[in-house]
Amino acid sequence: MIIIYLAIACGVIAVVYGFVTSGQVLKAPPGDQKMQDIAAAIQEGAKAYLGRQYRTIAIVGVIVAVILFLTLGPLTTVGFALGAILSGAAGFVGMNISVRANVRTAEAARTSLQGGLTLAFRSGAITGMLVAGLGLLAIAVLFWYLIGIAGHAPNGRAVIEALTALAFGASLISIFARLGGGIFTKAADVGADLVGKVEAGIPEDDPRNPAVIADNVGDNVGDCAGMAADLFETYVVTIGLTMISIALLVPGLVGEDLLALMSLPLIVGGVCIITSIIGTYFVRLGKKQSIMGALYKGFWATALISVPAIYAVTSAALGDMNATIGGGFTGADGPSFTGWGLFICMMIGLAVTGLLVWITEYYTGTEYRPVRSIAKSSETGHGTNVIQGLAISLESTALPTLVIVVAVVATYQIAGIIGIAFAATSLLALAGMVVALDAYGPVTDNAGGIAEMAGLPDDVRTRTDALDAVGNTTKAVTKGYAIGSAALAALVLFGAYTTDLRHYATELGLTGEVDFSLSSPYVVVGLLLGALLPYLFGAFGMTAVGRAAGSVVEDVRTQFREDSGIMAGTSRPNYGRTVDIVTKAAIKEMIVPSLLPVLAPIIVYFVVMWVATMGAPDPLPIEYGSAEAYGRAQGFAAVGALLLGVIVSGLFVAISMTSGGGAWDNAKKYIEDGNHGGKGSEAHKAAVTGDTVGDPYKDTAGPAVNPMIKITNIVALLMLAALAAAGSGGESMMVAIGG
Amino acid sequence: MIIIYLAIACGVIAVVYGFVTSGQVLKAPPGDQKMQDIAAAIQEGAKAYLGRQYRTIAIVGVIVAVILFLTLGPLTTVGFALGAILSGAAGFVGMNISVRANVRTAEAARTSLQGGLTLAFRSGAITGMLVAGLGLLAIAVLFWYLIGIAGHAPNGRAVIEALTALAFGASLISIFARLGGGIFTKAADVGADLVGKVEAGIPEDDPRNPAVIADNVGDNVGDCAGMAADLFETYVVTIGLTMISIALLVPGLVGEDLLALMSLPLIVGGVCIITSIIGTYFVRLGKKQSIMGALYKGFWATALISVPAIYAVTSAALGDMNATIGGGFTGADGPSFTGWGLFICMMIGLAVTGLLVWITEYYTGTEYRPVRSIAKSSETGHGTNVIQGLAISLESTALPTLVIVVAVVATYQIAGIIGIAFAATSLLALAGMVVALDAYGPVTDNAGGIAEMAGLPDDVRTRTDALDAVGNTTKAVTKGYAIGSAALAALVLFGAYTTDLRHYATELGLTGEVDFSLSSPYVVVGLLLGALLPYLFGAFGMTAVGRAAGSVVEDVRTQFREDSGIMAGTSRPNYGRTVDIVTKAAIKEMIVPSLLPVLAPIIVYFVVMWVATMGAPDPLPIEYGSAEAYGRAQGFAAVGALLLGVIVSGLFVAISMTSGGGAWDNAKKYIEDGNHGGKGSEAHKAAVTGDTVGDPYKDTAGPAVNPMIKITNIVALLMLAALAAAGSGGESMMVAIGG
Repeated sequence: MIIIYLAIACGVIAVVYGFVTSGQVLKAPPGDQKMQDIAAAIQEGAKAYLGRQYRTIAIVGVIVAVILFLTLGPLTTVGFALGAILSGAAGFVGMNISVRANVRTAEAARTSLQGGLTLAFRSGAITGMLVAGLGLLAIAVLFWYLIGIAGHAPNGRAVIEALTALAFGASLISIFARLGGGIFTKAADVGADLVGKVEAGIPEDDPRNPAVIADNVGDNVGDCAGMAADLFETYVVTIGLTMISIALLVPGLVGEDLLALMSLPLIVGGVCIITSIIGTYFVRLGKKQSIMGALYKGFWATALISVPAIYAVTSAALGDMNATIGGGFTGADGPSFTGWGLFICMMIGLAVTGLLVWITEYYTGTEYRPVRSIAKSSETGHGTNVIQGLAISLESTALPTLVIVVAVVATYQIAGIIGIAFAATSLLALAGMVVALDAYGPVTDNAGGIAEMAGLPDDVRTRTDALDAVGNTTKAVTKGYAIGSAALAALVLFGAYTTDLRHYATELGLTGEVDFSLSSPYVVVGLLLGALLPYLFGAFGMTAVGRAAGSVVEDVRTQFREDSGIMAGTSRPNYGRTVDIVTKAAIKEMIVPSLLPVLAPIIVYFVVMWVATMGAPDPLPIEYGSAEAYGRAQGFAAVGALLLGVIVSGLFVAISMTSGGGAWDNAKKYIEDGNHGGKGSEAHKAAVTGDTVGDPYKDTAGPAVNPMIKITNIVALLMLAALAAAGSGGESMMVAIGG
Repeated sequence: MIIIYLAIACGVIAVVYGFVTSGQVLKAPPGDQKMQDIAAAIQEGAKAYLGRQYRTIAIVGVIVAVILFLTLGPLTTVGFALGAILSGAAGFVGMNISVRANVRTAEAARTSLQGGLTLAFRSGAITGMLVAGLGLLAIAVLFWYLIGIAGHAPNGRAVIEALTALAFGASLISIFARLGGGIFTKAADVGADLVGKVEAGIPEDDPRNPAVIADNVGDNVGDCAGMAADLFETYVVTIGLTMISIALLVPGLVGEDLLALMSLPLIVGGVCIITSIIGTYFVRLGKKQSIMGALYKGFWATALISVPAIYAVTSAALGDMNATIGGGFTGADGPSFTGWGLFICMMIGLAVTGLLVWITEYYTGTEYRPVRSIAKSSETGHGTNVIQGLAISLESTALPTLVIVVAVVATYQIAGIIGIAFAATSLLALAGMVVALDAYGPVTDNAGGIAEMAGLPDDVRTRTDALDAVGNTTKAVTKGYAIGSAALAALVLFGAYTTDLRHYATELGLTGEVDFSLSSPYVVVGLLLGALLPYLFGAFGMTAVGRAAGSVVEDVRTQFREDSGIMAGTSRPNYGRTVDIVTKAAIKEMIVPSLLPVLAPIIVYFVVMWVATMGAPDPLPIEYGSAEAYGRAQGFAAVGALLLGVIVSGLFVAISMTSGGGAWDNAKKYIEDGNHGGKGSEAHKAAVTGDTVGDPYKDTAGPAVNPMIKITNIVALLMLAALAAAGSGGESMMVAIGG
């Protein structure tokens, strides 16, 4: 129990860090009146958007909560609500600090690069620590309540269901926030560029462009709030899933031993919050004034300090590091394991994090072949830029896949599925630092915009541009990291699904093992349908951005037409109207695609079950008692395959989109730095096209694949529980359907 | 045996049709001297390329043949050589008629649309019938020789191995031909456009452009010869695979019954050649002068007549349509089936063909939402055109996937894996007609080029343009069709793989069942690695086009610089030099990506086997006698999963690329027809960018995924046989490695 208290303490420290650092950031000078006015407009727009987004999500959330209450009872509902509210809170708080740090970063950049870097990074660190801290607190406090106050067994069904519901709440909010925010930010960005840069011929962030405030709002609601909700979800799902998999797969363990092992992911997460906070103090410019180098110093310091820290808490929690843990396994036919084994798995997790960061840097950094090849191909026009960008985006999936494949096999050989789960836990334990690096990006992006709009001297803009450039890489890093953790978690989620199937076999009316062999046509069909989801989801996201951007273009054209003073610079454009239009469009567009992964497992189960029952072979194989039992088994097999299909295809779709998009963006930046003709050249125009294409790729469709994968898996787990509850009681399900 | 003779007769009829129709085409007037000169240059270039390509492939082929001879013996080697030579021949003959029909189509288009249509379509039909006829003859004659002259049992190992080797030969050639031809045609196309349209500002097919002949050569070597080799491969693999799956999975059948069932795919293929030939006579312009309508008349006539034709041959071959066929199944736990059941499965196959054609038409035709949405989005620039095109390309995967999923489940419920195989057979039986529609495209494309270069009157060019426009859709149709058949065949191929594993269990040192369950990490790893292959392959293909196009641009620039008379129109550019440069580039670029799918299963097997042996659990699960046996089982499980991973991801990559590319191309055509500003508008420029991006998507990377999937599967089957041979004898393998 002491371990859980320690983990809660670490979570509290993260929150305290957030408050203290917020105070420091807010104390920094907010610039002149003009800058403050602009910042106020951005704040107002961001708040208005997030308010409306949360109200819309709340409606969906309440409906889901009622369904959960009727089918699975109050505990699940509370877990769901907790996850949903905290996921929303993580996004809200992150956005709130980000819209205040932007103007202060611009002001600090008047004096020095280090000043701007410190402010922007501190603001990012607040978001990062709050994401990790709130995530850890949510799980740890819930776990503490369930086993302490409510008196459930650590591996009891109540704990498993509550943790699953917590993850579901976080996932549901995060898919809306990621997608809605992603559509907002890119619709505003693309729309502003199209009508400003292309049609009117005015530069980016020109205050005459009515969409310019919407563009800056987008950075905060998409890249900051949406990203924070997404990473909160990833954190909660991964740590929670590790605990669930211990509860499900190591039944031989009881009493203190069980509690210690189940608390280990919590304290690993806790201690890594501390190492992340320490790491933030290593972020300083060196002699070379390399911004990326400064950020990396923080990251690598955190990673290095985490090695002994994780060892310390592991040996403290488990005692003898060489003792074999657990007796028989169910579901995981891996070897039994030791504390040392788990520690090595966690080190593999850290190594995966480092490798994913390095690979993303290679594919999106301006010093390496991929970005330079796109820049070079821009010389021959728009078409060749896009062709080369697509080639790089396809290619960029290879190394991360190999890293994940090696990690899966190695950790599985050491400690079975539990080993994979612990690797994912240590990967995510660094979330505080990784999110800090990412949330730094929108602040500097905004700072640049404010500097431009407020007419600050050119050297300020040069400094904010330098700060912003590395943001493209750090943003890509977080997305690769999140999807990488999803791939690592895939087998663990599948393990939870199969174990639950076995657990509920009687209630579900299953008479034999569900056959997940690739030679079953229902499995192949499930794989194909699962693989389709990221494609369809991506298509929705890309189309939504195109449509919403179109409405921005029309509004701006109308404003230019109605008031010729705007272009002349004599009258102020109606920024609020554009923000309002993008807000409405983004919220309208996010609903349908977000429901796709929620409904897919349910629809696939019922359709396949019905079809397989109808077409059950005659004579029936012995193990199935009836055609219905055969049909149910095939339905569950198809859903299981769907879960793996969605990750097998989603991993590639997500990585290719996020890395490719980052590479396109930085190829443009590389040309703007004076290569291949520099700004204004034909190559630059082609690179702008590539950047526009990459925008919805990397900031809308690609990153939303990560919560989409999780939500499909969690809905499948909840569906099993709901079907089982209906099977034994029946009434609750009928009430839900009837009322 | 009479059925086999009838099938051979049908194959001979196809060849005779080819010769007779060739005579008709060649009798048509070849135009004036200028046209003939241009055509001669194209002929010369195409022959030179194909000659060099075949010489390069021959080197690889001889090496592979030697390895096969040493590991698997003379019979396999002969089968391989037969498949390879005929696949090459199908491409060569198709190209040969295409480069003669082009100029004659241009000449015929002087008089009437119908005249041009008839000539171009006849030329396509020659290629189509030869592809199907040669494919059918290859399998039927080989089968006849093996069971007649050599006296093997129809389901004996000799037959299975020879048919597999035949498929391997066809696949190996076709991946080189598809990829090499694809790189050639798009490098020339993109290069010519970039330097001609964009830099020099001269129209497409302008004789002053030194790359213009290379562009026309590309249509013949890529879209005609490469496509023909690909479809030959698909035909041989599908029909052969159906026969192999009968031999492997219906062991209860003997004597005449077995021979009748194994001959059924042959005679279905044969009778559909006849219906395809009949269908060609339905291709006539109606009152509306709709070219697509004329082509569809031919297709639908063939499909409709095929229904009673297939019924007739099925009942003739099997006798009683209601009798249950086969006793016990191995591997396929589907129901036992009847003649009626097989007939219904084949009807489902025909329905899939029709639906795939209809869906492709929807996504690539100018009358429907997808193409129009891309055209509309071109108004706001290059970026939005590409974004919308990518969205459509992602979306276009959904309906084909659903069609395939429904077909897999329905046919499996009717007749197990054999049912799926027969659906694929009837799908492919229409290949003669489908290839005719496709091979028509490059002829009209060339005719347009020749009309432009020879300075024929504008109305001729208008007619050839109209003929060419539908070519974009028919080209996309064939590619969707080929990849759809691969998806349908995936389960059948996997069934063959698992049955072979069981057959060779002793020789391979397998002590228990290989576990293909999704809960095995080695299976998940195999799925991920398989899913990676199409991405990596696509990246290679796209990069290769970019690089080769770059060398075209440089050559053309040099020619313009060295001789200013070229642009003035006073001196003739050195067409041959450009052709030569593209030839060398395409052949160099095709080698590495083509070897990727050949080597992948072998590497994955040995690496996973080694890693799993090293990390075998302790204590070992009872069913494995040793760590080595455990390792081998995991290696084979990973390879099996790789085979499904490559189709699960390849289906989406291929469809999105081919449909998306077709949509981009026709969006440009739609604008050129006077919509959204028409030719020369900003929207048109954006649409040209989209078209350029779509080029390597639809003509290089996308279509080559189909043979890539097949070759991965076939190499896996051959690897099993080779490992088994080495296991029992050992010596042959040592010789191969040592010598």
